[in-house]
Amino acid sequence: MNRKVFEFQSKPGILSSCAVGGRLEKEGPLGSYFDITETDTTFGMESWEKAETKMVEICSTLALEKAKAAADEIDLVFAGDLMNQCTASSFAFRQTQIPYIGLYGACSTFALSLGLAAMSLETGFAKRTMAVASSHFCSAERQYRFPIEYGNQRTPTSQNTVTGVGAVILGEQQGERIAVTEFLPGRIHDYKIKDVNNMGAAMAPAALYTLKRYFSFSDKKPEDFDLIVTGDLGMEGKNILIELGASHGLILGENYNDCGVMIYDLENQDVHAGGSGCGCSASVFSGYLMDQLRCGNLNDILLVGTGALLSPTTALQKESIPGIAHLVRIQRVK
Amino acid sequence: MNRKVFEFQSKPGILSSCAVGGRLEKEGPLGSYFDITETDTTFGMESWEKAETKMVEICSTLALEKAKAAADEIDLVFAGDLMNQCTASSFAFRQTQIPYIGLYGACSTFALSLGLAAMSLETGFAKRTMAVASSHFCSAERQYRFPIEYGNQRTPTSQNTVTGVGAVILGEQQGERIAVTEFLPGRIHDYKIKDVNNMGAAMAPAALYTLKRYFSFSDKKPEDFDLIVTGDLGMEGKNILIELGASHGLILGENYNDCGVMIYDLENQDVHAGGSGCGCSASVFSGYLMDQLRCGNLNDILLVGTGALLSPTTALQKESIPGIAHLVRIQRVK
Repeated sequence: MNRKVFEFQSKPGILSSCAVGGRLEKEGPLGSYFDITETDTTFGMESWEKAETKMVEICSTLALEKAKAAADEIDLVFAGDLMNQCTASSFAFRQTQIPYIGLYGACSTFALSLGLAAMSLETGFAKRTMAVASSHFCSAERQYRFPIEYGNQRTPTSQNTVTGVGAVILGEQQGERIAVTEFLPGRIHDYKIKDVNNMGAAMAPAALYTLKRYFSFSDKKPEDFDLIVTGDLGMEGKNILIELGASHGLILGENYNDCGVMIYDLENQDVHAGGSGCGCSASVFSGYLMDQLRCGNLNDILLVGTGALLSPTTALQKESIPGIAHLVRIQRVK
Repeated sequence: MNRKVFEFQSKPGILSSCAVGGRLEKEGPLGSYFDITETDTTFGMESWEKAETKMVEICSTLALEKAKAAADEIDLVFAGDLMNQCTASSFAFRQTQIPYIGLYGACSTFALSLGLAAMSLETGFAKRTMAVASSHFCSAERQYRFPIEYGNQRTPTSQNTVTGVGAVILGEQQGERIAVTEFLPGRIHDYKIKDVNNMGAAMAPAALYTLKRYFSFSDKKPEDFDLIVTGDLGMEGKNILIELGASHGLILGENYNDCGVMIYDLENQDVHAGGSGCGCSASVFSGYLMDQLRCGNLNDILLVGTGALLSPTTALQKESIPGIAHLVRIQRVK
């Protein structure tokens, strides 16, 4: 039985984190936790795709500075995004000498990169690694839906792709620290949802089953954590997960939230069901959540990155939308 | 300095391998080493994209059978392809219960998946893992170039995307075995090549620098290996690598070859500079090379997966083509 939770004996520490965002993210409730926000969504570049690459460069550079690390001290970077062929990430790291592992986990990519970056440290060969994920509203709209200029109307269950990047540097660390202690890679679940404007519904079952697997191996209960936070189910998916969970005996209480719900003011910002995209959980984790972990408001959390593994081609070919959810546990350890 | 070669103390064994191919691959010089070939490029499906997913399902299922392993005995699968959002892989594994790690390394994906699958075994948490990569000529043409129906003329330096899949099962193994013993993740190198019909030229510098880094850490010399084999430089890129190597003091002799050159009869098959695509090195390794390793004709080889990290969008935006090359060493060990 493939029932393993990867428990990291070395408990790799998060040496630094950095979050970069756009205008909507700055105006949201977590705006002050971003390291850098920019109201010009082009970030001074000539296309949105290049803007996203620029954001990844800015974010990873600042994460390195905060960790007082040079790029050539990083043994591996794990990175990914939503662009075709993941070019936001690969084009950002072509300027560096950092060995590069490209990931595709749709919006679950940040949790996946965090888990794998910790795993590579656990082997002892890597001493410092970086985990990064990004998305950009405009590049994602062009990629998955319609060009912005078209002024497409969005449905109530649709989510707003976060213009954001999160990057963390992980490494061997002694003493009290914020550490990645567990990693449970997700399986793919397909609940036959076909509505490309309802990603929350497509991803919620994957989050449910990953959490169920986790608690089936663990002696912990959901209420033992300061926070269980899914990546980007949005309000629709969050409510589905709470309901689905209850019907499966997994009671998610006050300590459950979703990065896609947290990042925006759903009442007053025009974002429909909330935020989505690789950059959603990446920037909420690297900004707000890391701040709360550092200051001790949170000490033990589960981050459940959620991804919808569709493409425009699979949607056109009338395929349903498989979901995946990767779980990482982040704890204050001594 | 990020100068690490990952040396696997556990020397994980390759328990089984399987290669699936199309008509051209069957007719090529390595045709008899494929486990399954199909002259119908749709593999009975209604689209080429679904055909590629079907091939991945067939290949991974047979690899499991050959390893006498059930899907739920596999702790992790590392998989990737060339499709937007890597759907050939993710749609294939939605039928299984195997925890899934999606990779994007362009045509270098197979070496990357092999290296990471071995790394996850080295931590001791995973006991059996799978590494898979795929490509399909028709889905790649539609994805990157023109629909087949258009009858686009190809340039002499262009390569033919292999319709093929390779899958291997890795695991703890004692005694004499074919093992993955080293992994050197590649950096991204951009030589400012902009010709999307000359991937060999775009990828050759990455292969050069990965090999140079490897030999700078190793006490081995190129001639100490039975074979050094790049993924899919094709004849053009192979010759560039030999020339570039010579000018950098890296002499690649008779024991150097390229999967893209080996898989087709370049004189008599209409494939221009040779084969390319994730499925090229994946199927050549999982079929022919594993056969040669098993029977003892090869005992110590370096597989250097090569990838061109472009997308149709980056090409349209006049970007150059970054390359990457990941190296794995496969050895008979006792």
